[in-house]
Amino acid sequence: MSDYVEGKSRWFGWGDLDVSFNMDDRAGLLPYLRGELGIDPEKPLFTEPTLEEMTLPEPRIPAAGLDALERVVGRDNISTGRFMRVSHSQGKSYRDILRMRMRRLDHPVDAVVWPRGEDEVAAVLKVAVEHKLAVIPMGGGSSVTGALEPMDTEGFAGVISLDLARMNRLLKLDPTSRTAVVQAGMQGPELEKALNAQGYTLGHFPESFHHSAVGGWIATRSAGRQSTGYGKIEEMVMALRMVTPGGVVSTRRVPHTAAGPSLLHLCMGSEGTLGVITEATLRIRPYPEVFDYHGLLFRDFSAGVSAIREMLQQDIVPACVRLSDRSETALAQAARYTTGSRLKRRLEDLALKALSLRGYSFDGGSFMVLGFEGEAVKIDDLRGQAISLCRKMGGFHLGSSPGRQWYKGRYELAYLRDPLINLGVMVDTLETATTWDNLLHLYGEVRRAIKEAIEEGGGRGIVACHVSHSYREGASLYYFFLAPMEKGKELEQWERVKKRATRAICDYGGTISHHHGVGYEHSLWMTEEVGEEGLRALRALKEALDPQGVMNPGKLLPRGG
Amino acid sequence: MSDYVEGKSRWFGWGDLDVSFNMDDRAGLLPYLRGELGIDPEKPLFTEPTLEEMTLPEPRIPAAGLDALERVVGRDNISTGRFMRVSHSQGKSYRDILRMRMRRLDHPVDAVVWPRGEDEVAAVLKVAVEHKLAVIPMGGGSSVTGALEPMDTEGFAGVISLDLARMNRLLKLDPTSRTAVVQAGMQGPELEKALNAQGYTLGHFPESFHHSAVGGWIATRSAGRQSTGYGKIEEMVMALRMVTPGGVVSTRRVPHTAAGPSLLHLCMGSEGTLGVITEATLRIRPYPEVFDYHGLLFRDFSAGVSAIREMLQQDIVPACVRLSDRSETALAQAARYTTGSRLKRRLEDLALKALSLRGYSFDGGSFMVLGFEGEAVKIDDLRGQAISLCRKMGGFHLGSSPGRQWYKGRYELAYLRDPLINLGVMVDTLETATTWDNLLHLYGEVRRAIKEAIEEGGGRGIVACHVSHSYREGASLYYFFLAPMEKGKELEQWERVKKRATRAICDYGGTISHHHGVGYEHSLWMTEEVGEEGLRALRALKEALDPQGVMNPGKLLPRGG
Repeated sequence: MSDYVEGKSRWFGWGDLDVSFNMDDRAGLLPYLRGELGIDPEKPLFTEPTLEEMTLPEPRIPAAGLDALERVVGRDNISTGRFMRVSHSQGKSYRDILRMRMRRLDHPVDAVVWPRGEDEVAAVLKVAVEHKLAVIPMGGGSSVTGALEPMDTEGFAGVISLDLARMNRLLKLDPTSRTAVVQAGMQGPELEKALNAQGYTLGHFPESFHHSAVGGWIATRSAGRQSTGYGKIEEMVMALRMVTPGGVVSTRRVPHTAAGPSLLHLCMGSEGTLGVITEATLRIRPYPEVFDYHGLLFRDFSAGVSAIREMLQQDIVPACVRLSDRSETALAQAARYTTGSRLKRRLEDLALKALSLRGYSFDGGSFMVLGFEGEAVKIDDLRGQAISLCRKMGGFHLGSSPGRQWYKGRYELAYLRDPLINLGVMVDTLETATTWDNLLHLYGEVRRAIKEAIEEGGGRGIVACHVSHSYREGASLYYFFLAPMEKGKELEQWERVKKRATRAICDYGGTISHHHGVGYEHSLWMTEEVGEEGLRALRALKEALDPQGVMNPGKLLPRGG
Repeated sequence: MSDYVEGKSRWFGWGDLDVSFNMDDRAGLLPYLRGELGIDPEKPLFTEPTLEEMTLPEPRIPAAGLDALERVVGRDNISTGRFMRVSHSQGKSYRDILRMRMRRLDHPVDAVVWPRGEDEVAAVLKVAVEHKLAVIPMGGGSSVTGALEPMDTEGFAGVISLDLARMNRLLKLDPTSRTAVVQAGMQGPELEKALNAQGYTLGHFPESFHHSAVGGWIATRSAGRQSTGYGKIEEMVMALRMVTPGGVVSTRRVPHTAAGPSLLHLCMGSEGTLGVITEATLRIRPYPEVFDYHGLLFRDFSAGVSAIREMLQQDIVPACVRLSDRSETALAQAARYTTGSRLKRRLEDLALKALSLRGYSFDGGSFMVLGFEGEAVKIDDLRGQAISLCRKMGGFHLGSSPGRQWYKGRYELAYLRDPLINLGVMVDTLETATTWDNLLHLYGEVRRAIKEAIEEGGGRGIVACHVSHSYREGASLYYFFLAPMEKGKELEQWERVKKRATRAICDYGGTISHHHGVGYEHSLWMTEEVGEEGLRALRALKEALDPQGVMNPGKLLPRGG
C-alpha cells in the first residue's frame, strides 16, 4: 500500500516520517561541513512546511470528469483532498524539496486515483482521453528528475496522479523457471517480503528501495546498489504489460526472442509517457545464504578504478562494488559513526596511523566497498579472488567491519539532505556512465564543471563522486555535491550547476542518466543524447500509442519540434 | 569481401562451392534415411540449376536512377549482371533453395550496389527515395526467413540489393574497455581474424558464421552456438549506427543508460526495414586459452533438460550446451563418421553394449554436447562442476571425443540440405524459446504439430529437436524436420507444415523466432507475437524513420492494416 495512503511518508522531503538523520551518532560531520562550506548550523534558512502553508488552488477537473473516474475506481479510490494532492504533485529531487521549503507548489495535480487492476487502469485512461485529463502514473513517488510534476498541461481540463499502490500483488511465482509475475505497484519491501517468504529475492535495491515500486523501476530503468552482480532492472524484466490509451502492449513470456525490435525495451524507460506499466514478469534468484561486505582502501581513485576493471574483466563479479573518490572518502570519514567505546576509537586511531605509514589515508585515499551475496561456499571462492586481486592492484583490505557499517547505513544518507537543505545547503546528486578508457577523463571534466559552476556564485563546494555500478566495458559515476545556497537565487544556482555538469557529460562521452531517468529535468538534453533521428523515433512512438498526448505530458521528450 | 564478389559461394544453395557434404565418411546416413523416409538415393528429383536456366527479366531501374547510383558508388560498385542479380535475390531458406531447384526466381532484384562507407549508404538511400527504388540491405546473404527477396514492391521503379561487403573494416579496438568498433559488412571470419590477431574474440558463432555479417546478425537478433556463455548478439552490441532515409540513429557508446526507451534495442531486430546498420561497437573477450567440448548421454530428453536448467540456475554456465532429443540422437548416431580403423569401430560397438547394460542408448537416449571456453584454470573448475552435476542428474559422461567430433563437424550439417533436396526430401529447421516450466510441453506440441502436418500428406517424416541456447529462465528449441516431398505440391507441403508448427508455437507459449528473425516467412505471425498495440508501435517507427517505405518493404510487419 502507498506510503501516502498510510500516512507514514514525509510528503515535504525524503523517507519515513519517523526516521531522521542522526547527527549525534556522527559527531564529526557538522564540524566538517562547517569547515568546508562555511555554514552555520545554528542558523537554519528554512523550516519544514505544514500542509496548510502550501497554496493550493481548487481542483480543476469538471464534475463530469470526476464522476466518470469515480464510476471506474469507486469513491474510496479517488481523492481531491489537500494531503493527497500536495503529496502527489512532485517527487524528491532537490528542486522539488527546495520549492517545498519555499512553500511553492508550482503545478499541483487535481486528483489522485488508485486503480485496483489493469482493467481499471484502462478505463481511467479512457476517461482521461474523453475528458481531456493528463495522467501521471506514480509508483513510490521517489522520482529525482521531476517526472511526477504536472508540466505542459495547457489545454487539459485537469491532471490525475494515477497511484498504483493498490496494484501490489505477487500474481505468480514459478520456481522452475525462477520467474515471478507481479503487479507494478508493488513497492520494494512488499516485493522482497513476498519473494523472501518463498526463498527468493529480486536483488534490486536502489537507494529509494523503501519508497519506490516495480513499475517505477522499469519505467525509469533503475539500478540497484547490487546491480554489478544482479544487473539493472532491464536485465531482471523478462516480460511486461503496459496499458496505453489505445490498448495493451503485452510482450511474450519467453527468455529471449528475435521477433523484431524489442517491444520490452521500448516500454522500459518510457516513464509513463506511452502508457502505464501494470505487470511484469521478473527474473528472481534464490535468497542469498550470505551477505558479506568488505572495505578496502586504495592510495588513489585511479588505482581503485583499475582494480574494478580488472576484477570484472577477469569475470570476478561481486554483487556490489563502490569506489569513492578522495572527496567522498574524506566526507564519509567525517560522517563515520562516533558512537561506541573510547577504546574502540583509540584502536581506530592507531590503525589509521599504521595505515598512513604505508601510504594509505582517508584524507587522500579512495575507499572501496566490496560486497558478495549468495551461497557461502561460492562466496568464499569469489571473495578470495576479488580481495587478492585488489591487493595486487594496490588495495589495502580493511576487513569486513567497514563493509558491514556501509551496508548497515546504506539507506541513511538519503535522510541527510533534508536537514542540510534546512541549513541552507544546496545538496544534489547526478550520475552518468562511460567506458573504462574514458572514465577518469569524464570524471575529471564533470567534477571540474560542477566545481567551477559552484564557485562562479562565490561559494565553496564539496564535489564528491563514486563509481557506483560496474560492467566489463565501463562503469557509472555518481556525483554528490554540496554548496552554500545563494540566497534569493537558490533555484538559479542549482540550474547553473546542473546545466554545466550535464554539458560536460554530453561533451565528454557520458550519458545524461545511467539510472535516474529523464523526467523533466533531463528532457532538454534528450536531443544531444539520442540525436534528431532518435527523437523522431521516440516522438513517433508517443504519437502512435498516445495520440491525444494524455500520458505524462512534458516529460522525457524536449518540448516543441 | 562478399562471397559472391569473390565467386566462391554457391548461389543456388548453401555455402562454399568447393565444400560438399561427404556422404562417404558417414556411410550409415543414407541407409538410415532410406529406411525412415523411403527415399531412393538412386533417383534424384532435382538437379542443381545453372545460371542460364534462371529466367531473369531485364532490370527495371530507369537509366536516370542507375546513373544516380553510379555517381554515388562508382562504376565498379554497381552491377546489373545476371550472376549478381540472381545471387542477391533470395537467402538460404528451404523455400528459397527449393524454388531455385525449380528454376524459379519469383522476385529478382534489379541491381546490386556496394557502398564503401556510411556516407555512400546515406547517398544511396537518398537516390532510392528520389527514384522510388526499394532497398534491401544484405550482409552475408544467409537469411532463412525470406528477408532478402523483393516483396510488396508494387509502385517502385525497381529494387536494389545494398550489399555491405565493402564496409568490412575493424575501425577501432579498445583493449581497456574491451570493445571493438566495426563496420557492419564484416563477415564472421573477417571479424574473428581481425580480433584474434589482437588476442580477442567476439564469441559469436552461428551456423551461418562463414556466410553472415555483423550487420545481419544485429538486424536479425542472431544467436551463436556458444550464446549460453557469450550471450546473443543483443548482449554483445554496446552501441550502433543506423542510416535511415532521413538521417542517422546513433546510440551513445556507454555501457548502460537510463535515457528513455532503448534506441539500441529499437534498431536491433529491425531487419533492414528502418534503415541500414552501418557500424557497431561490440563487447569483445580475450581469445580463449582452451576449447574443451564433451559428450554426455542421458536416458531421456527430460532428464537432460533438468540437468541444463539446474546447471544454469546454479550459475554453472558453459559456453555451449546442446541437448538432442531421441530422434536427433538417433539421427546423429546414424550420421556419425564411419572412417577410422576397424579396431576403433569394434571398440565403439563394445562401448555401446556396455552403455546399454546401464540403460543408456543412442536409439532411445538423449545426447548432450557440453562446451567450455576460456582460461584453462577456470575451465577446469567449471567442467568439474558441470559434469559432476550432470552425472548426479543421470547423465553418462562419454568423454571429450564425442564433443570434439561435434565441434569439428559443427558447420558440416548445413551442407546436407542441398543433396537431400536433390533427392526429393523436404528439409527445414525452425526454432522457438520458452520458459523451463513450459519447455517439455511446448516441445511435445510443436513436435506433434509438425509430425501430423507431414503425415497428412501421406508421408513419413523425421522430426528431430535439440535445446540449442539456454538461460536461467528457459531455453530455445531447435527443430529439424525431414519428409519425402509431395511431388508437384512441394511448396504447399512446406507451407502446411510451417503453418501448423507456428500455430502450435503461438498457442503453447513460444516465440515465433528465437534467433532467425521474422523476414517474410514469419511476418504473418507478428500480430500474434506482439499484439495489435505492439504492431501499432512498430508501424509508427517504420513510418517515422522511413516515410516513403523504401526500406525492405514487405518484411517484418504483416501486410496491410
